[in-house]
Formats: sequence, C-alpha cells, structure tokens
Amino acid sequence: MQETHEIVFEKVQESKLPVTDFDNLVFGKSFTDHMLECTWSNGSWSATHIKPYGPILVEPSCKVFHYGQAIFEGMKAFKDANGAVFLFRPEDNWKRFNESAKRLAMPELPYEVFVDGLKELVKLDQEWVRYGEGLSLYLRPFMIASENGVAAAPSTEYKFMVVMSPAFAYYKGDVRVIIASEFSRAANGGVGYAKAAGNYAASFYPNNLALQEGYQQIIWTDAATHEYLEEAGTMNIFVRIGDTLITAPTSDRILNGVTRRSIIQLAKDHGIKVEERRFAVAEIIAGAENGTLKEIFGTGTAAVIVPIKGFKHKGFVHELPELTVPYASSLKEALKDIQYNRAADAHGWRVKL
Amino acid sequence: MQETHEIVFEKVQESKLPVTDFDNLVFGKSFTDHMLECTWSNGSWSATHIKPYGPILVEPSCKVFHYGQAIFEGMKAFKDANGAVFLFRPEDNWKRFNESAKRLAMPELPYEVFVDGLKELVKLDQEWVRYGEGLSLYLRPFMIASENGVAAAPSTEYKFMVVMSPAFAYYKGDVRVIIASEFSRAANGGVGYAKAAGNYAASFYPNNLALQEGYQQIIWTDAATHEYLEEAGTMNIFVRIGDTLITAPTSDRILNGVTRRSIIQLAKDHGIKVEERRFAVAEIIAGAENGTLKEIFGTGTAAVIVPIKGFKHKGFVHELPELTVPYASSLKEALKDIQYNRAADAHGWRVKL
Repeated sequence: MQETHEIVFEKVQESKLPVTDFDNLVFGKSFTDHMLECTWSNGSWSATHIKPYGPILVEPSCKVFHYGQAIFEGMKAFKDANGAVFLFRPEDNWKRFNESAKRLAMPELPYEVFVDGLKELVKLDQEWVRYGEGLSLYLRPFMIASENGVAAAPSTEYKFMVVMSPAFAYYKGDVRVIIASEFSRAANGGVGYAKAAGNYAASFYPNNLALQEGYQQIIWTDAATHEYLEEAGTMNIFVRIGDTLITAPTSDRILNGVTRRSIIQLAKDHGIKVEERRFAVAEIIAGAENGTLKEIFGTGTAAVIVPIKGFKHKGFVHELPELTVPYASSLKEALKDIQYNRAADAHGWRVKL
Repeated sequence: MQETHEIVFEKVQESKLPVTDFDNLVFGKSFTDHMLECTWSNGSWSATHIKPYGPILVEPSCKVFHYGQAIFEGMKAFKDANGAVFLFRPEDNWKRFNESAKRLAMPELPYEVFVDGLKELVKLDQEWVRYGEGLSLYLRPFMIASENGVAAAPSTEYKFMVVMSPAFAYYKGDVRVIIASEFSRAANGGVGYAKAAGNYAASFYPNNLALQEGYQQIIWTDAATHEYLEEAGTMNIFVRIGDTLITAPTSDRILNGVTRRSIIQLAKDHGIKVEERRFAVAEIIAGAENGTLKEIFGTGTAAVIVPIKGFKHKGFVHELPELTVPYASSLKEALKDIQYNRAADAHGWRVKL
C-alpha cells in the first residue's frame, strides 16, 4: 500500500508563460513557473514544497561546494495530440536516483516524494509541455548536500529539488567521436554507474580537447586497458555490426540508461539481434576495415538517439556509411511514437498524469 | 614582475570574535568575520572582494549542483610566540589549485588573486589566528561553476571564494584502516590527482562501510588490480619498513600533497631513507609477518601526520608495534617547529604576512 507525503503548494502570482518565446529557447536556460523542494534533516524528509522557481540562499561552506555530494536524473514529459501529458518510465529514474544516492552516501527518496512530487509539479506547469514534433518538458530532479561545514565527511542535511525546462528537437550538427585511449571516465569500484555530478566535471577537459580536434564527443573505454568500449558520458553507445546491435553490459563503471534499456527492448521487438557484451575497440576497427560496421549511435534522454557520423581512435579515422533506413532512425521513431502516445504502449512505459 | 589586482574591502560592522567560544569549537563549523569572492565571466576575473562572511544567492540550475565543477585547497595560517602570522607554502597550493582547475575545465587563477588575496584576507582577520600548540586558522580556497543552466557542458562563469575556520589540535581517537580490495577512488586518466569535490563524495560510502567495521579510514589501492597502495583520500600514506620510509609516487590518480612533499624533505634532512615507488600490499603484509613493518602514517594539511594503529586487508588483520620514538612523531614535531616559527626555515616554506 502506498504511503502519502504532504505536499505544500505556493503558486506564482503571475506566470512567465506569456513572456516566454518558445521559438527562441536555448536548451536548459529557461525554467517553468514552479520548482519542487524537499529537505532532509534529522533523519527524515520534510513535506514536499512546490513553489515559484527562484534562487536559494546557500552558505559558502555548504558541503556540496566542497565534497561534491550531488546527483541528478534527466527525464521528460510529453504531450499528445489530445493534450494529455505523460511521463516516461518515471519509476526507473526513481530507482536509479536511489542507487546513485546510496553510492554517494546520500539518503534515498520515497516513491511518493520523487514520483508523486514530479507528477504534481508537472500537472501544475502542464501548459509548459508543448505538443509537437520533438517538443517536451525536460525534468531535472537533483539532490545536493546542504549542511554547512568544511570537515570532509558526508553531509547530515540534503535538498532534493526538481526544476523543469522546455525542450525541443534541435540539430546539433554532425557528431563525430574520439574513442578514448588516454583519459578515463570511471574506475572499477568507483561511481561511473551513478549520475554523480563529479562524473560530468571530470569529462569536460578531455571533451574540450576532442572539440579542438573537430570531434564533438568521446566514447570512453575501460580505464585499465582502454581496449573495451564503455559509454559516452551523456549517452550509452550502440554499435551495429552486420545486422546485430552490440552495447556494453552495464557495470559499476557504466550508467544503466533508461533510453538504453528501452532501445534494447524495441530492437528485440523489431526482430533485431542485440548483444550486451564486452566489446573491443579492435572489433570496431575490424568492422570498419571489412565493411561490416554499419552504425554507431548514442542513446540518452536529452537527445533520444544520436547517430555517430565518424570516429577516430589513435591514428585510425573512419567515416560511417550513409544508410537508407538506419536502425538509429527506425528505433528513434518507434520510441517517440510511444512517448507521444502515437503507438500502443506494449511495455507499460507511459504514465499519464 | 608581479601584476596587481584590485581588491575591494567591505568590512563587518561588528566582529564575531567576542562571541566565539574558542574552547568549544567544532572543526569547520565556525568561520571568521570575512570571506573573499572573485568572479569569472566573459573570460576574465573581477576585482577581488573581501567582505563579511555570509550566504550567497544561487539558482537551483547553477551548474555546480548538476555537473560538479568544484575544486578546493586546504591550507593553514600559523601565529608565532611574538604574534607574527605565517602562511605555509602558499605558492604550492596556488599551483596545485590551477592544476585542478585545468583538469576540471575551469579557469586558472592569477597569483595575485589567489596568494595576494589570501594574504589580505588573513591580515584582516588575523585576530582569529590563535597562538598555541596545535592552533591555527584553516583556510579554504575553492572555486565553483556558477552559470545557470542544465545543459551538460562546462560553465561559462565561476566563483572563486575563500572562507576561513579556526582550527585546533584534537585527538580523534586511534585510527585503523582498511586497505581497499573492492572499491576505488580514482581511475588512470581520471581526476584523482585533482582536489576535485567529486573525489570526496565518491569515497564516503566505502568509508561508511569501513566505519561500520570499526575502521576509521581507507587506504585506496589501484583500481585495475587493487595490488598497489595509493593514498587515503584526505591523506597521502607513508609506510616504514625497517628504517626506510616508502610512499607511492604521485600520478594522475594520487594527490601531490604539500604535507607529503614537506615530510619527504624533512625525512631526508633527518637522514632517513625515503623511497617514492610503487608499493605492493603484499610488501606490507610480508613486513607485518616478518616484523620489519614499523609504522604507517598519513600526511595532510588538516591533521599534519596521523599514525595508523592497525590495518585490515581482506582477511588479514594486523596491529602496528608501539615505538618509543616513531618517525611520525619526530617528523610531525619538525614540521610544526617550522610552521610555528620555532625552528630555522631552511627551505623557505614560511611566508610572513
């Protein structure tokens, strides 16, 4: 039986909607009228507060600034042609959020705080979810250490918050990647599987070096040998050799992506053979050389599926072939059809508000 | 020739000194009257602002909360018997801060902002530096990403801040450690050598597990094999076998500690043989079994030197012998004599304000 958790509403006096120019948005820079905040202290979560989006007062000694206890999730809400609003597999994000929390020594969140809170917040700001190709509302639940003090120990206080930003389909240009042979994203026995803030900060410098070489992303390899593919930091990675899709198994170094899991299921539904296995860089290069390498693509909530146009690994540079109907396109359409309620939801992924 | 950087002072109306109970301080919870703040935007650093310690207004979309770009240093100011105030090797901390900044894709700081700013701040609050055994003022320079926005990319804006907290000698109780065989702190090609906030968050959960077993700290081993000693997260580690001190060489996984470097120099000055080399867990265990293992200690700014009383590695448990004059004690005294201006400063480590 599900518990309930008190939600306290404080609504804005005036919505920002009429003055928001949806045709000229920058991703992640505009936020809806309301946000959610819930605080952990003395071993329990406060009531959920849904209130106007705005700044918070934080002491400079706040532990998140010093010891990096910060985790997040990326999710989306979609609107269908009839104006109904849906979340996509929110329970999966809640479960993963709690796995991240555990690994970062942070308190786990009850379902009622995370999922029910999100539902109420999206309902209140549902006019911000636009209907149309590629449009959605990006949801950003996150938790930060909020105790003041510079002693190096886990915080005794935390803030769970959700902010929401209108999202749209945008073409970032072609994406080519470097397959890492020097820098690493995650260690065995580390926090690579968690959506920990520090994992992202660690990737920016190597990614800047890639950008300077004309590559937009990095596909990370295992830190010990750099011989096996892992993930791309903001995306899981799939490689198509012949008609088989291959992706690295999740591990303590690799994020267990919700989009990854959904694409594996949809591929199987479409009769595509999928292998989750350790996958060597050498296999990609062999596939490039003998012509069996057909596609590489990334999967993630923000971009859904990103086809990779080419890659570089040490001295080896390769352009992927242009296919008429790549798996990346058909699987992306299949996933969007479910998200926008244009197709049957065989796996129960949509959650209607 | 050294440049100058504008410093703007805003002083407190009333000092908190008279109402601060120095006999009942909790480490890292009390802060002096003033703090330092300097902001990076449009490619340059603002004037340095020295102003009353207090909270800052931060948007929930602030990038530090989501992508973990946050680095820091730990330093101390000391007062001698005549009331003169000294910093200890501040240029070393400035250089390391900039190495951390580079790896986290954050802007580097000019000497004038970091070292000169610190000097002015400590001068203003010098009454907070107490004279006496083990007393000091703990300085915490740190930098955080301050751009608002949830797109996963390096911030375009940063805040550099310094807060200061009175510190004292305190006995934490005996310290026993677990030598890691499952969890890891850092990957090859990762950010272990940087004082990155995320490195600390990653260590809290394994450290909590150690605490539950009655061990206070973890000595990390290499992520790839768990066969070689690295560091302890808040301390570098020295092992004494016979009359030789051994410590792991710095690498991209191991912090280049200022106290570590100082202790190596002082040990050499005292005629102690020091080896910086890859050091296997198996060597420690062999030393424990054949009686040549004399000491293990950690070095760091906060605690200076922490003797380790015992360790556990998988099923192997060992108590270190009680020595009459351990290296840990003589080296700690030698370092403190320099810090408190009780001994000659052969290496030019003290910087008088």
